[in-house]
Amino acid sequence: MISLDFNKMGGLVPVVAQDHATGEVLMLGFMNAAAWEATLKTGRATYYSRSRNCLWVKGETSGNIQLVREIRIDCDDDAVVLRIEQVGGAACHTGHRSCFHKRVENGTVHIVGEPLFDPQEVYKT
Amino acid sequence: MISLDFNKMGGLVPVVAQDHATGEVLMLGFMNAAAWEATLKTGRATYYSRSRNCLWVKGETSGNIQLVREIRIDCDDDAVVLRIEQVGGAACHTGHRSCFHKRVENGTVHIVGEPLFDPQEVYKT
Repeated sequence: MISLDFNKMGGLVPVVAQDHATGEVLMLGFMNAAAWEATLKTGRATYYSRSRNCLWVKGETSGNIQLVREIRIDCDDDAVVLRIEQVGGAACHTGHRSCFHKRVENGTVHIVGEPLFDPQEVYKT
Repeated sequence: MISLDFNKMGGLVPVVAQDHATGEVLMLGFMNAAAWEATLKTGRATYYSRSRNCLWVKGETSGNIQLVREIRIDCDDDAVVLRIEQVGGAACHTGHRSCFHKRVENGTVHIVGEPLFDPQEVYKT
């Protein structure tokens, strides 16, 4: 098992999920050692949810799983980039393709693009 | 000033630096509120160094500064993507273009690409 430096963030490393085809950054999550091992083993992006304090297979509720196409780690082994195929097209719980759909311009925030799904339909909230 | 949620990480947010032209992820750093404000004000990527506990204008030693072309924040305001122009071509202190130059394949790590500069020359180590 390829080891990462989980010590700098109390057991976690930040993980960037990037569309494998377009390079678009879709989301940023965190992994603990178990999430890292699960991702390597299953080929599906698995994170650690800081709010729920548990492993989180991305898409387990929405069906929008992330198939891992390439894994990169950084120079000092404390951050990961996953190049992934985003099933369903949208990574964000808001229905937007990317969580990073808020652009900062001249001191204000502009929403980029439209949601691809209705979160209330998908998450039954 | 556009506010971010610095509470989830004890005063920091993770920041992805992405090449504005190619979409390549070049590095992952962290910002505190002062680094965020400095980045917005100056248009140069400014991070918070966790190892040195100080603000860090990327490139202040190497000259390889990052000119901010676009700023994105995520759905819950706790992560940032900077689309930047990397002066000098290389973001990594190893001389590689990207810090994420280590590809994980079949349980081993492969270095992708060649350094663009000699760190010993640049940092006088």
